Amino acid sequence: MVYIVRYGELGLKGRNRGKFEKLLIGNIARALDRKSFDYDIKSYRGRVLIYTDNDAKFVLEKVPGIVSFSPAEEMSYEEVFSYILSKLKTMTPSTFRVSAHRVDKSFPKTSPKINEEIGSFIVQNFGWKVSLKNPELIVGVEIINSKAFVFFSTYRGVGGLPVGSAGKLVLLISSGLDSPVAGYLMLRRGAKIHALYLSQGPLGEKKVRKYITILSQYAPEDIPLEIHSHHSVLAEYARVLENRGMKRWTCVLCKYMMLHFAEQVAEREGALGIITGDSLGQVASQTLNNMYASSIGLKMPVYRPLIGMDKVEIESLARKIGTYEVFISAKEEKCPFRPKYVSVETNVERFREILKNLDL
Amino acid sequence: MVYIVRYGELGLKGRNRGKFEKLLIGNIARALDRKSFDYDIKSYRGRVLIYTDNDAKFVLEKVPGIVSFSPAEEMSYEEVFSYILSKLKTMTPSTFRVSAHRVDKSFPKTSPKINEEIGSFIVQNFGWKVSLKNPELIVGVEIINSKAFVFFSTYRGVGGLPVGSAGKLVLLISSGLDSPVAGYLMLRRGAKIHALYLSQGPLGEKKVRKYITILSQYAPEDIPLEIHSHHSVLAEYARVLENRGMKRWTCVLCKYMMLHFAEQVAEREGALGIITGDSLGQVASQTLNNMYASSIGLKMPVYRPLIGMDKVEIESLARKIGTYEVFISAKEEKCPFRPKYVSVETNVERFREILKNLDL
Repeated sequence: MVYIVRYGELGLKGRNRGKFEKLLIGNIARALDRKSFDYDIKSYRGRVLIYTDNDAKFVLEKVPGIVSFSPAEEMSYEEVFSYILSKLKTMTPSTFRVSAHRVDKSFPKTSPKINEEIGSFIVQNFGWKVSLKNPELIVGVEIINSKAFVFFSTYRGVGGLPVGSAGKLVLLISSGLDSPVAGYLMLRRGAKIHALYLSQGPLGEKKVRKYITILSQYAPEDIPLEIHSHHSVLAEYARVLENRGMKRWTCVLCKYMMLHFAEQVAEREGALGIITGDSLGQVASQTLNNMYASSIGLKMPVYRPLIGMDKVEIESLARKIGTYEVFISAKEEKCPFRPKYVSVETNVERFREILKNLDL
Repeated sequence: MVYIVRYGELGLKGRNRGKFEKLLIGNIARALDRKSFDYDIKSYRGRVLIYTDNDAKFVLEKVPGIVSFSPAEEMSYEEVFSYILSKLKTMTPSTFRVSAHRVDKSFPKTSPKINEEIGSFIVQNFGWKVSLKNPELIVGVEIINSKAFVFFSTYRGVGGLPVGSAGKLVLLISSGLDSPVAGYLMLRRGAKIHALYLSQGPLGEKKVRKYITILSQYAPEDIPLEIHSHHSVLAEYARVLENRGMKRWTCVLCKYMMLHFAEQVAEREGALGIITGDSLGQVASQTLNNMYASSIGLKMPVYRPLIGMDKVEIESLARKIGTYEVFISAKEEKCPFRPKYVSVETNVERFREILKNLDL
């Protein structure tokens, strides 16, 4: 069997295309290697062809950069007719259509011509009705490198760009629902990820490790996860704030410390920014004031791919990638420093002063 | 007629709920006022009720914070039966179901009880089949403040949070496809927007004005648009770069200057950050290196709600809000400074030096 893999971000052109394709092929190969599959990869004019006897669907549907793919059989155009005859005789669709695409423009028959030839052949032999709009069966035919590839199903890929087409980012991951989704979205746009978890305890850690296992399926290699205890660092400052009657600033300070720690890790790792799961207004602490205050003095950009999304949209993405189940099926430690009232309208200038006094 | 308006971000609770509701009601009122509609608004336990004889659908479907709404009739529970009898006699659905919801928990009949009573009444009188899963007709009944509200259709709202629930942001808008969508997403998360266009010429300006008119429909008042000529500012530096053989840095420098100008505007406006339409890797210049370099020295956060999205997703949002048509149906000026080769892997340290030498 051969999988026809389609890619191609709109607007991707010129010199980038070759680099993109090379990276995509490398990533597909590594994903197949991890499953110890036997395979052979070729590429031809905007198509990648994967020859394998293994069931590669579950691998291909998680490789960023793939828009769609179809498990197909390769043959000469003349052979298509007898192949279709044997394949279709067990099927009973009420309507069908042929969907031909001539990737190889040097092939003498045009796509409409192929549609017509194969379509009337099927009508003659099976008497099925043609429906262009919403057929039960689509007989796909692509002409690639003068050969015909015939298929009956097409699967959607993840889309986006191949991991590695952008540089590295540090993902500030937590045991919550949002940050793994944020990591997924940036992976899908080609970023390499180095995950950083500032741990609350073993339960949170277990959850985060599961998230990383899931996210790693979308990457050509396992995503590194760096874990530090955040408590030991935060504890002292949380006490100082409490003693000064400023306990409600604890969460902003905590976030400030996490972001700055992430920036240090990013510098060490040669990463170019930080990813967070922030979504505006989703919880009381994710206000514009708090996000401004907690990023005071950062040199690197912070990427917040969920910033404009609703909770339902984030949940739906989490379900799609598989992190939702982990999120709801296990508990994690509660933060012992979280005050009853969290400052939501943090005055940025006031917070600057507090930072000065704390002398971090 | 009365519109039942439903809101309620998941996880929104406690003290925020009252503030949220007040803001939402105010925004709905302002949106209706702009159309010079006559109306009366009440609220009751997670529902807003809008009494009006005007067709408010086209207003309500654009107010952020509204999850769904139904045009309904209000009556006593006893009156529901004769009302349904007269309303349903012109309908011929093959299947139906009753969907009752007791918002007012003090009402003596439970939702299942109401479903049963009205459902069997309909079966008796019309003989229609009940389908719980996928009925052709849904008879909606909500019990609000001891009254019954009956409706036959429910429309989806924009979702999100009411505009004004977050602070102000400066939207760096261009004549392209992306930035208006970015603005929409942040509006929908409750941010107030001040738009800034660094103009390329009258065609670009015309397009941007149209975008702002469309975006303003989602806001309680017209979004202010500030326009400056960017050319006059950039021209000098573009020439310097060219003279030094560093023309390929022009786009990064341009973006740097725009972001820093936007920050000045944000400070003047009391805004808390900047919104851009950046999407990672979408065009060659939107690399992690370039985004890092162009935001060197910024004090405020930059929000990039499209950073993790594919082009097709951005286009689909643009179609939904109505900016896509403006984008494709008009041309704008080309940038006269854009070099043939744009630096994509801008070295951040090198760019820092260039900035020092340029002495902006």
